[in-house]
Amino acid sequence: MVAYDVFLADCPARTTLGLITDTWSVVVVVALGRGPARYTELRDTVGGISKKMLTQTLHRLVANGLVERRALRTAPPGTEYRLTELGHSLLEPLAALSRWAEDNTDALLDAQASA
Amino acid sequence: MVAYDVFLADCPARTTLGLITDTWSVVVVVALGRGPARYTELRDTVGGISKKMLTQTLHRLVANGLVERRALRTAPPGTEYRLTELGHSLLEPLAALSRWAEDNTDALLDAQASA
Repeated sequence: MVAYDVFLADCPARTTLGLITDTWSVVVVVALGRGPARYTELRDTVGGISKKMLTQTLHRLVANGLVERRALRTAPPGTEYRLTELGHSLLEPLAALSRWAEDNTDALLDAQASA
Repeated sequence: MVAYDVFLADCPARTTLGLITDTWSVVVVVALGRGPARYTELRDTVGGISKKMLTQTLHRLVANGLVERRALRTAPPGTEYRLTELGHSLLEPLAALSRWAEDNTDALLDAQASA
């Protein structure tokens, strides 16, 4: 296994970091952490995301092996998205980060006000 | 305290999430997790960051209360940056994310290759 290092310029780990820290990706992965969801359910859960952005975000997460899509044999036919095993392993650090954002936004707003 | 929720559109917690997940911010915070550092030391540690980008990143981190700058009474005079208490509280989730990126980049590259 190659040793990756986010401090190195051009290290693929930095590209990975950029992918997994994209704000929409974070929110979508945390949303799928609650369980598999259809496209329309995700649009309801992730407030303010446009169709285009949700489609792009899911496409990127699928292309990187973090999310899998599955056709549902329902009428009308639907599509369900769920975290892969790799995606699940990302859930804990992302959920921690998401909680940090919720818990510390007041402190950041205070700092901004006094800057 | 207001209840923040990253799933809500226009919630300030989502802005916070965007700030703390900016790739350069992540790498700089993790770098400062090793201890206080001068500007030039940070430029050496964070491979590939431009002067402009490092300056902007530090400015944003300082403005949000995550990093503090201190003038050093040295000859020649220098400036040192260190994490604030708030910045330290962010270190653990960011370091976990950074480790995840280093540990799972192979898996992501495999997924990309088979997509």
